[in-house]
Amino acid sequence: MGIFKFMTPEIIFGINSLSQIGESMLRLGAKKVFIVSDPGIVNTGWVELAIQYLEDCKLNYCLWAGATPNPKDYEVEKGVDAYRESGCNAVIGIGGGSAIDAAKAIALLATNGGTIHQYEGVDLITRPLPPMVMVPTTAGSGAEVSQFSIIVDSKRKVKMTIISKSLIPDIAIIDPQTLMTKDARLTANTGMDALTHAIESYISLAATPLTEEYSLQAIRLITKYLRPSVASQHNREAKEAMAMASLQAGIAFSNAILGAVHAMSHQLGGLLDLPHGEVNATLLPYVLEYNLISSPEKYKNIAAAFGENVNGLSLTEAARLAIKAVKELASDIGIPNSLSNVNLKEEQLDFLSHNAVHDACMITNPRDMEASDVKMLFRKALGSEC
Amino acid sequence: MGIFKFMTPEIIFGINSLSQIGESMLRLGAKKVFIVSDPGIVNTGWVELAIQYLEDCKLNYCLWAGATPNPKDYEVEKGVDAYRESGCNAVIGIGGGSAIDAAKAIALLATNGGTIHQYEGVDLITRPLPPMVMVPTTAGSGAEVSQFSIIVDSKRKVKMTIISKSLIPDIAIIDPQTLMTKDARLTANTGMDALTHAIESYISLAATPLTEEYSLQAIRLITKYLRPSVASQHNREAKEAMAMASLQAGIAFSNAILGAVHAMSHQLGGLLDLPHGEVNATLLPYVLEYNLISSPEKYKNIAAAFGENVNGLSLTEAARLAIKAVKELASDIGIPNSLSNVNLKEEQLDFLSHNAVHDACMITNPRDMEASDVKMLFRKALGSEC
Ligand SMILES: [Fe+2]
Ligand SMILES: [Fe+2]
Repeated sequence: MGIFKFMTPEIIFGINSLSQIGESMLRLGAKKVFIVSDPGIVNTGWVELAIQYLEDCKLNYCLWAGATPNPKDYEVEKGVDAYRESGCNAVIGIGGGSAIDAAKAIALLATNGGTIHQYEGVDLITRPLPPMVMVPTTAGSGAEVSQFSIIVDSKRKVKMTIISKSLIPDIAIIDPQTLMTKDARLTANTGMDALTHAIESYISLAATPLTEEYSLQAIRLITKYLRPSVASQHNREAKEAMAMASLQAGIAFSNAILGAVHAMSHQLGGLLDLPHGEVNATLLPYVLEYNLISSPEKYKNIAAAFGENVNGLSLTEAARLAIKAVKELASDIGIPNSLSNVNLKEEQLDFLSHNAVHDACMITNPRDMEASDVKMLFRKALGSEC
Repeated sequence: MGIFKFMTPEIIFGINSLSQIGESMLRLGAKKVFIVSDPGIVNTGWVELAIQYLEDCKLNYCLWAGATPNPKDYEVEKGVDAYRESGCNAVIGIGGGSAIDAAKAIALLATNGGTIHQYEGVDLITRPLPPMVMVPTTAGSGAEVSQFSIIVDSKRKVKMTIISKSLIPDIAIIDPQTLMTKDARLTANTGMDALTHAIESYISLAATPLTEEYSLQAIRLITKYLRPSVASQHNREAKEAMAMASLQAGIAFSNAILGAVHAMSHQLGGLLDLPHGEVNATLLPYVLEYNLISSPEKYKNIAAAFGENVNGLSLTEAARLAIKAVKELASDIGIPNSLSNVNLKEEQLDFLSHNAVHDACMITNPRDMEASDVKMLFRKALGSEC
């Protein structure tokens, strides 16, 4: 084990914790708060509730609901213009990973200037960001605790990964109640995103004892609670557990980074604007097959966390149960087992594979990958090679 | 589960991580650094090495090595005077829990003024502290990540527990190399302090899924590595594991708080200036007996974390194995099994018991305790009642 770093925001967790948003913003010195969200979340009423809590604390605000799934560079630019005009000095993001990533990118440009493309990569942010409080409403992205913001470069049609400790919000408020307005499809997709975070962070080359425990615990919670959470919008116990799983997986991946699943799905998402969680979920078993020889012991632990009986099995047999468990869970909640519905042309595969190899998430994948390996996995996932 | 909060400092962990102390201080805006330590640690050479790293970054410093075990109010006052005269704007603590607690208390008074007694209790600090980096050299106290500072009120002869998020350092640098200069006795005592943190935080009424995983993992590491760490100053693997165990137990107890062992040992330590870890270790089995009915399921998990075979046992039988494992470990590393060597008079027991009930750590103990219960446990531990 070499030298490693570990960081999380201050975390406030629990049913009704949204009520602490006004006090949290005051504590951070906010005068007027720029709220980043999307129209879907505004419709659920959670933004309105948050605004009430801000008003209770005599805080002014400006609502900007311009985030979309896979947030784009030009949206972020519009958001920054709105931030500057508003006279705000603090940022709240309420929503899924997209709203929160957009909120972070707006906060970044607000104090650092320039265009978002300049910050693609690791540690390129020099000035402190305005105070940020993030409120996730999907148990999946982990963006409320992570040092990542993923923004689409609309010209190049690629997702830019921006990594910096400055992107870790000051406070993450995780209120499992907000999950009760998610439909089954979004619950399944974001839950599988959280599972992908847990597994990729666990087998990551940058995993540490501080992240591994959270990765495994997230897997235990997801295997027990994702199915019932998809089954009912009203299962409070399942929502609370999935909120915790997503949080733990988020802390784990923010510090241990991810792997080839995210490196590949970022490319598909950037090119075709596909749902992040579903693409991850579909790619996950294919990548796990490829990565297996890198860390069979860890796969065995993953299988055990899924509740598989690994006693008396050879290491490889036990490791394979991890992949089996992922496939069964995905199948039970209606995740497609291939990308066959995705409209991809052969000549696009080279572009995607080349970019995936250079994605920041590829560095910590436990098995080396060249563009040809990525292409082979894309082909398998597309069902054009078995 | 109600609403809970969770916070840690930024953590830098690993052999040679001390080398990052200059860069860390620069990042926090330090110009001149006030180093708090004690003569024993200065003799080991770690302070000198830290100073070299500060000088490499062109940072000025002032060394104050006036901390003692169970740091006293008047020492803190001297330290604050020295801080003010020095023109420093940042604080480093290097040493065991005592040096780090003293460093925190000095930083607290430096910006908040008054005397340290004013801050006894929870959340009484109003102004931000100077930037703080803490470097633990004993794998035990967890003070480098905690929101606690424990200072002796020399007049009242009690330990004051000061709890505030403001006491969480900005950065904790945990370099397991520093453990290689500890003798066997200190290694045993501080290791048992870490074990007490792990167990008390795990069964605490304020435990959460974010703390429980770390508590259990700390127990797993301590049961495997504390004996070899006591056996040899040079076992690098054991030092690294004990540093991690202490860190995880520290994160756990800073957020889940502790219980009756600490509430009681604070009183003994305050009155008689006894070694904190050893007193905890001696009290732990007695308090665990008393607390058992509160959480037998958790005791069973503790037993399993110790590697005890809990299969086929009744819940109570399995739970009892946790106490057995603690006793065996303590015995193997030479911890006394009673306080019979401690010079306590019967009339002092009322004073100690009364104060223990009002210690901040008692609030989260999983079984209610009145002064008469505490007194009974003190008597048992003294060997005057069996
Ligand atoms: Fe993701
Ligand atoms: Fe302690």
